[in-house]
Amino acid sequence: MSHKYSAILSNVGSCADRFLTSGYSHPFSVSELFARVVQIPQISGVELIGNWHITENNVKEIKNHLDEHQLQLVSIIPDHFGQMKWKYGSFAAKDPAIRAEAIAHTKEMIDAAAELEGNLISLWPGQDGYDYLFQADYIQERDWFAEGIKEVCEYRPDMQISLEYKIKEPRTHSYLSSAAVSLLIAKEIGTNNIGVTIDFGHALNAYETPAESVALLKRYGDKLFHVHMNDNFRHWDDDMIVGSVHTIETLEFFYWLKRTGYQGWLSIDQYPYREDSLEAVREGVNAMEAFTRMVDRIPSADFDNLIREGKSPTITAYLRNLLLT
Amino acid sequence: MSHKYSAILSNVGSCADRFLTSGYSHPFSVSELFARVVQIPQISGVELIGNWHITENNVKEIKNHLDEHQLQLVSIIPDHFGQMKWKYGSFAAKDPAIRAEAIAHTKEMIDAAAELEGNLISLWPGQDGYDYLFQADYIQERDWFAEGIKEVCEYRPDMQISLEYKIKEPRTHSYLSSAAVSLLIAKEIGTNNIGVTIDFGHALNAYETPAESVALLKRYGDKLFHVHMNDNFRHWDDDMIVGSVHTIETLEFFYWLKRTGYQGWLSIDQYPYREDSLEAVREGVNAMEAFTRMVDRIPSADFDNLIREGKSPTITAYLRNLLLT
Amino acid sequence: MSHKYSAILSNVGSCADRFLTSGYSHPFSVSELFARVVQIPQISGVELIGNWHITENNVKEIKNHLDEHQLQLVSIIPDHFGQMKWKYGSFAAKDPAIRAEAIAHTKEMIDAAAELEGNLISLWPGQDGYDYLFQADYIQERDWFAEGIKEVCEYRPDMQISLEYKIKEPRTHSYLSSAAVSLLIAKEIGTNNIGVTIDFGHALNAYETPAESVALLKRYGDKLFHVHMNDNFRHWDDDMIVGSVHTIETLEFFYWLKRTGYQGWLSIDQYPYREDSLEAVREGVNAMEAFTRMVDRIPSADFDNLIREGKSPTITAYLRNLLLT
Amino acid sequence: MSHKYSAILSNVGSCADRFLTSGYSHPFSVSELFARVVQIPQISGVELIGNWHITENNVKEIKNHLDEHQLQLVSIIPDHFGQMKWKYGSFAAKDPAIRAEAIAHTKEMIDAAAELEGNLISLWPGQDGYDYLFQADYIQERDWFAEGIKEVCEYRPDMQISLEYKIKEPRTHSYLSSAAVSLLIAKEIGTNNIGVTIDFGHALNAYETPAESVALLKRYGDKLFHVHMNDNFRHWDDDMIVGSVHTIETLEFFYWLKRTGYQGWLSIDQYPYREDSLEAVREGVNAMEAFTRMVDRIPSADFDNLIREGKSPTITAYLRNLLLT
Repeated sequence: MSHKYSAILSNVGSCADRFLTSGYSHPFSVSELFARVVQIPQISGVELIGNWHITENNVKEIKNHLDEHQLQLVSIIPDHFGQMKWKYGSFAAKDPAIRAEAIAHTKEMIDAAAELEGNLISLWPGQDGYDYLFQADYIQERDWFAEGIKEVCEYRPDMQISLEYKIKEPRTHSYLSSAAVSLLIAKEIGTNNIGVTIDFGHALNAYETPAESVALLKRYGDKLFHVHMNDNFRHWDDDMIVGSVHTIETLEFFYWLKRTGYQGWLSIDQYPYREDSLEAVREGVNAMEAFTRMVDRIPSADFDNLIREGKSPTITAYLRNLLLT
Repeated sequence: MSHKYSAILSNVGSCADRFLTSGYSHPFSVSELFARVVQIPQISGVELIGNWHITENNVKEIKNHLDEHQLQLVSIIPDHFGQMKWKYGSFAAKDPAIRAEAIAHTKEMIDAAAELEGNLISLWPGQDGYDYLFQADYIQERDWFAEGIKEVCEYRPDMQISLEYKIKEPRTHSYLSSAAVSLLIAKEIGTNNIGVTIDFGHALNAYETPAESVALLKRYGDKLFHVHMNDNFRHWDDDMIVGSVHTIETLEFFYWLKRTGYQGWLSIDQYPYREDSLEAVREGVNAMEAFTRMVDRIPSADFDNLIREGKSPTITAYLRNLLLT
Repeated sequence: MSHKYSAILSNVGSCADRFLTSGYSHPFSVSELFARVVQIPQISGVELIGNWHITENNVKEIKNHLDEHQLQLVSIIPDHFGQMKWKYGSFAAKDPAIRAEAIAHTKEMIDAAAELEGNLISLWPGQDGYDYLFQADYIQERDWFAEGIKEVCEYRPDMQISLEYKIKEPRTHSYLSSAAVSLLIAKEIGTNNIGVTIDFGHALNAYETPAESVALLKRYGDKLFHVHMNDNFRHWDDDMIVGSVHTIETLEFFYWLKRTGYQGWLSIDQYPYREDSLEAVREGVNAMEAFTRMVDRIPSADFDNLIREGKSPTITAYLRNLLLT
Repeated sequence: MSHKYSAILSNVGSCADRFLTSGYSHPFSVSELFARVVQIPQISGVELIGNWHITENNVKEIKNHLDEHQLQLVSIIPDHFGQMKWKYGSFAAKDPAIRAEAIAHTKEMIDAAAELEGNLISLWPGQDGYDYLFQADYIQERDWFAEGIKEVCEYRPDMQISLEYKIKEPRTHSYLSSAAVSLLIAKEIGTNNIGVTIDFGHALNAYETPAESVALLKRYGDKLFHVHMNDNFRHWDDDMIVGSVHTIETLEFFYWLKRTGYQGWLSIDQYPYREDSLEAVREGVNAMEAFTRMVDRIPSADFDNLIREGKSPTITAYLRNLLLT
């Protein structure tokens, strides 16, 4: 099968962390980021982040960038995490004015996406959750969260709204924590245009097997709308280069994407703090392509049989022959 | 509020692990276990495990024990984990004969529970899941799992069927992994008599905040049917004495039980490997009682206010005054 | 016993993370930070971070701040983490020029500390480690690390050099990862002025029991030189308010500080992203004081007996009575 | 390089866990275990467990098995974990009689090993540690532990005593928790015949990079005496088939074994609960051989260069080409 490859635009830029807030590299302008990302030949689309890259006021300028570089708009990720005002949450904030702003900004980004011929909003409400025990009204705040999501889903039924779950960070606990929680919310909202983004690393952090998360979303309504790729050491969202740690999990993930007929984008979401970020994304894409090819050149009956039998020595022997010889 | 306290009968017996399979203490007969558990004055009910304590053939004998000791049957936990035949799963096993046995045994235990005037089956399908990557058909096996659960739920609508989730062990990955996955399945089955058991430690293992899990189950259909209490160090199901590690999480959990109007049992589920098991359960019950009393003597407006404001220094100061002075 | 309380100066300021690099609150000047921290009455000293607060050029100015507010210099934490040049490490960097800079900056900070009548450098070489597999020469880089530490220890024998370990972040793996690794390095260096800083949360992250880490450092040469206090949910360095999660671990930690005769400072090291940072630190200090008082008012024979007997039901009952009634 | 392959004898038998204490397969006699293990052609030695396989009374019988099957005795693992008497510890038990028994049994096993022409004792004092907070005297019990280890090391200087660390299980916290703790103890004992066993999975559980643990043991005195191989999902000692999860970590581990000139055995330590245990071990050995061959056929300059440069995109590209094409 052939996949469509993309990247979040900031991934080819500079990264910061809490100890080095000015960034591990010099900053790049949006123009420079576009010029960098197109140096990766397999990439045909980009994801843009609200405020970081796109606002309601620079849509024309972004359109020019996309046109100039013949890139598709894969998604907009509205900003629900990168300004001081979101510090107590966005859709689930205790303050009704903030909740209203979260919805309003999302609608603006939906309109911007439509104008840019995009059809996907990837929502990452990373500030919705809590840090401390006894800090949150878990029922009320989930109600608010669902109300906000519902309103943005109903705003424009032709725009897909995809929920990106993550078990923690920046809050110690997120409301949108897992594939299953995302499905509960998607069922509650009930519109056709709501779905789920799997971030490979977020799945690992929640002790999900990423391939199983693909299957779960398939089984409960064909709800896998989007994929973010990276890797990590399981305990934290290290946002490393695709395939750099979990060879077999990544292979199984690509196999299940094929098995379930996933048609969406595969988008890089790495944080190359110390790496040359362009080279890191390039290699991430190369890795995605290599996993895709490997899955394609294996007779599908092979994996089907392994799974049907479920015998671990046979599975392990097969993978050994595949990977090590 | 007043809670009803119980214990899983084996908790006052001897425990084994994989290195000491014959057990850390001498074994006790079922009679002895009954005689031990009633030495804990607050306990008015017991949970029994299929095959370990109850079979379709010893129901009369069990009835005599219950009557003699004036104990209620709180639940039966059918055996889907303790025999060689379940090693590849029960409801989700690849072998249809095993799946049929899982259902048949559950129905027997439902009948036994009814005969013993119980109204709850706590299902823990611990072998349903997988160990290795590429070992499981995540869609097919979840289908089988749901079919089996549906059949036992429809068998007798007056019997509550409560799903006890756990993220791993004995498999490296369980299908019934989290509160949210349990709700997805409960919604899929759709009967009134399906609900969820929170095991406090299992919630911690899944990086859930146990109080939040209570709220989640309340919000999605009032589905908290049963509670198993214990404690652990978060990474593994250590099954320690209630309150021995997580003072504040346990307090918040008891508060949310009250806030959501939980009416069910609070049942000890500890594995006192090296402890005198009777003393460990006694102390577990004492701890549950102490947390209940503490919640009761705090004006409910206090916690309501902390949660409404959500200011962590205020919360922390309140808890400091409560616990440390 | 009476403890000396302090804070890292930046703790009463604004915090940033990788998603909100400009900070969750407005920034404070060094002057303002001093004016804020002295509003906490129990605090009699501060820790300063290289470059963030102190350079070789502003020592006089810092001296004025300390004098004006009658604060002691508790330690300087040299900057080995907050500039782009440290991105591949400091003492263990592959580039010899960077290693030389790490040493030179440390010596400057040693001189500055001496001039400010401090006697402690708390080293946190957070960038020394690696992110990827096959990225590091684990032997060579540990050699360089030890050489650098040795040189700064020998520079001025009257200045205590205390190693603050942390298992990860900002690198996915740190060289100075645990209490035991720190002791190995301290023994290798062999000078009297090398010791270890326990950060309570870092100990939890490494699956250490913080009280046991106190004991380990006592047993292997009385090497506990300094303490940073905070709390977290075990999996990550959440840097929360002291005592907000781990009531019993914190109590046991304070007990072992007393039992081993710790004479150093107890210093707040929190990251109050969303909190009023002054209130968060104030409450952290209040918590430290409350734990100290609790340990002081318990007859030491009580804990001695619990530990000597080691019976968990007795221990749990004792703690229940202490904390919940 | 050529490695010597072995297995712990019980690995080709039946496994139990705490829910199925009678085992997931039918049991095998010691004779049968010997007859099974020799069906794996690469295996030329076995490890025996005290009491499970060998006692002071059946040494002759064991000798016959070894001779008949032309197997070397790789090590004896004395039993410090598999009897009720060890439930509160062995070398670090509070009861002096138990501590004496731990030492006496070890000496018996040393004598047995010598008689069987073995030169290695792999000590796994899994019960030495604690479960609960406030349960252990961390200094006193480490003193006892060190005294016991010292006595068995001094008993027979020609017998290597290798400490196998593990961060937890069966206790919630072990004293011999990590590579670094093991080195601290080895340095404290100070004899030439004390060293360390790396269990690949135990290293992962402690958030060590196994290859780095090899390097650490090399650097601090060439103390890697023995290796146990398996794999897991990082959070628990799942004891899965070698290479079934961590392809790159395992490859890097084999590379560092070669780089540091490791001459010892590579021994399977798996718990094939549901697998045909003989096939699981056979495949584990095949995997070890495949990793060895892969390391051998890569020009050593390749990995040297990757490590010297430390550029993650280059590393990832190299591994992609190696594993995926």
